[in-house]
Amino acid sequence: MNEPATAIEAAVAASPLHQLKDELDIVIPTIRNLDFLEMWRPFLQPYHLIIVQDGDPSKTIKVPNGFDYELYNRNDINRILGPKASCISFKDSACRCFGYMVSKKKYIFTIDDDCFVAKDPSGKAINALEQHIKNLLSPSTPFFFNTLYDPFADGADFVRGYPFSLREGVPTAVSHGLWLNIPDYDAPTQLVKPLERNTRFVDAVLTIPKGTLFPMCGMNLAFDRQLIGPAMYFGLMGEGQPIGRYDDMWAGWCIKVICDHLGLGVKTGLPYIYHSKASNPFVNLRKEYKGIYWQEDIIPFFQQVVLPKDSTSVQKCYIELAKQVKEKLGKIDPYFDKLADAMVTWIQAWDGLNPTSASFSNGKIG
Amino acid sequence: MNEPATAIEAAVAASPLHQLKDELDIVIPTIRNLDFLEMWRPFLQPYHLIIVQDGDPSKTIKVPNGFDYELYNRNDINRILGPKASCISFKDSACRCFGYMVSKKKYIFTIDDDCFVAKDPSGKAINALEQHIKNLLSPSTPFFFNTLYDPFADGADFVRGYPFSLREGVPTAVSHGLWLNIPDYDAPTQLVKPLERNTRFVDAVLTIPKGTLFPMCGMNLAFDRQLIGPAMYFGLMGEGQPIGRYDDMWAGWCIKVICDHLGLGVKTGLPYIYHSKASNPFVNLRKEYKGIYWQEDIIPFFQQVVLPKDSTSVQKCYIELAKQVKEKLGKIDPYFDKLADAMVTWIQAWDGLNPTSASFSNGKIG
Repeated sequence: MNEPATAIEAAVAASPLHQLKDELDIVIPTIRNLDFLEMWRPFLQPYHLIIVQDGDPSKTIKVPNGFDYELYNRNDINRILGPKASCISFKDSACRCFGYMVSKKKYIFTIDDDCFVAKDPSGKAINALEQHIKNLLSPSTPFFFNTLYDPFADGADFVRGYPFSLREGVPTAVSHGLWLNIPDYDAPTQLVKPLERNTRFVDAVLTIPKGTLFPMCGMNLAFDRQLIGPAMYFGLMGEGQPIGRYDDMWAGWCIKVICDHLGLGVKTGLPYIYHSKASNPFVNLRKEYKGIYWQEDIIPFFQQVVLPKDSTSVQKCYIELAKQVKEKLGKIDPYFDKLADAMVTWIQAWDGLNPTSASFSNGKIG
Repeated sequence: MNEPATAIEAAVAASPLHQLKDELDIVIPTIRNLDFLEMWRPFLQPYHLIIVQDGDPSKTIKVPNGFDYELYNRNDINRILGPKASCISFKDSACRCFGYMVSKKKYIFTIDDDCFVAKDPSGKAINALEQHIKNLLSPSTPFFFNTLYDPFADGADFVRGYPFSLREGVPTAVSHGLWLNIPDYDAPTQLVKPLERNTRFVDAVLTIPKGTLFPMCGMNLAFDRQLIGPAMYFGLMGEGQPIGRYDDMWAGWCIKVICDHLGLGVKTGLPYIYHSKASNPFVNLRKEYKGIYWQEDIIPFFQQVVLPKDSTSVQKCYIELAKQVKEKLGKIDPYFDKLADAMVTWIQAWDGLNPTSASFSNGKIG
């Protein structure tokens, strides 16, 4: 293992993307020792980690030697946010969004601790972070579909009939990566297809078109904090809440309508990580079942949301969205009243920790 | 070559999709002998061909032995359609849509005569038609994006967070295939990147989301004639017209807004064909240049088109679209007045040749 790892390290250090090492934080929510980082060492060791420890704060989480990190447990979150800590979930990986808030970097890469380095069809280890950075640094094309996928990929371009006025694209705010091996299925699908594994390597990145929602998974996700950070709230899940496993979905619906409104792009596709183990479908069913029927109303809500023209910053959009959640989804269940309040608290907490971003407006509309 | 071809033939005959051989026509526009069919023989010989001969009708087009075909030249088109033949382009591959009109089958596969059998990354010859049929026979999912692409592909499904109420999908009307080797670029891109070749095999099929337009290429295209045939008009191009190489684009914009309105799906991705030769970029530039600037107005027009609720059949949608083209695009150039009239003529000619389809209404709205 040593020699290839060294070769990878050399390649990583030589990459022009390596210059971003001071502009990107890696956020990892966990309840266990981070042995999984050993496999990621050649790719991730140059970067700073923000570890959000979930569950019992008295437990010690071991981090492999040589990684530069800061770690926050529940006591830290309560101390830093005071009463506003109520917006950060407990006993659910939704707690990871606290890491987005305390970061001071431009970019975030977040990854689950059961995700390993995947291999491409040639057997080469995939540098997931490098691909995410490529995705974030090249424009998105949400207004018209390019049939050869990402026109900015090597050897690709815009095809005949793609309007020239749209080829400049828009800034990319989010890069959503995928998973080989265990697919990200809901509990019913896990139960029905316990043996299904994803072995299909789809060599493509694409922009999710404007006006289209998608199921954003938080397992392998990168984003531009400056462009969209305040909307990357993973909601109220886990202990004391009637729902789990919809944290990343909630964030995905919110960021997509805000990106569409502000003229920002969301990409999905490469990079793949190797997802090692399926979570328990019975436990998942308990966490998910309210989400499964609520989403039948939530998704039409997000499909129809209109943000006003004067919502020119992510914060303004998010506060407006919270208002509409309370009005329109509050009828479904009192949970959405609580969630709408937590969305406002989240923005207050974000602005408290990120005072210079509070007045940040997106260039396009602002 | 003989032995593998025989093996392929056996595989083709054994495929459950082979039962469609009496329900599908292959439409080929051409000005030359169809030697390219030799390579396709194991895959296409079971099917009936409709050859639309462009240019000089006195020229004889040779078709390899053993293929079952009917051939129409300009004299035939004039004889069959009478004055309505004016809606069929001359000296442009747009003439292929005449073949859609005279077919009596449920499905159409259309292919250019410079397209050959492509190979997948394992070196296996790709049965393009089989993949198109799979695409057409499985539902589309235009209302929400599935991050693992086609949920009906082998080993794939809907991911966590995909609303269950949308998993039934909608009928698929169009399957748009791609091209290895020479990409389908416009003249400016051809000029700038003369050596670019597409070598990226993207192992995916996906539904183009509702509300999103795409550049539909006619080189490797299949569709359900019963569901969308009357909208597959390739416009007025070539001799006597100010524009060329926008025939398939025009059809693509029209079919997409009509599919969106009627609740039908459009897929893109697999299968690949091998596109053998780039057309002359200087000639292409002359054909395309008006299209390149007109499309800057045409695309916003199609993005904003609203079809009335009582447009419950493809024909009604298309007549309504023709009306709006005249009203809104007629201002750009008198060409669009002529095109709008030709759209109406096309529907009259279609209904004349397909009397039972004239009153066909899509089940969803009608």
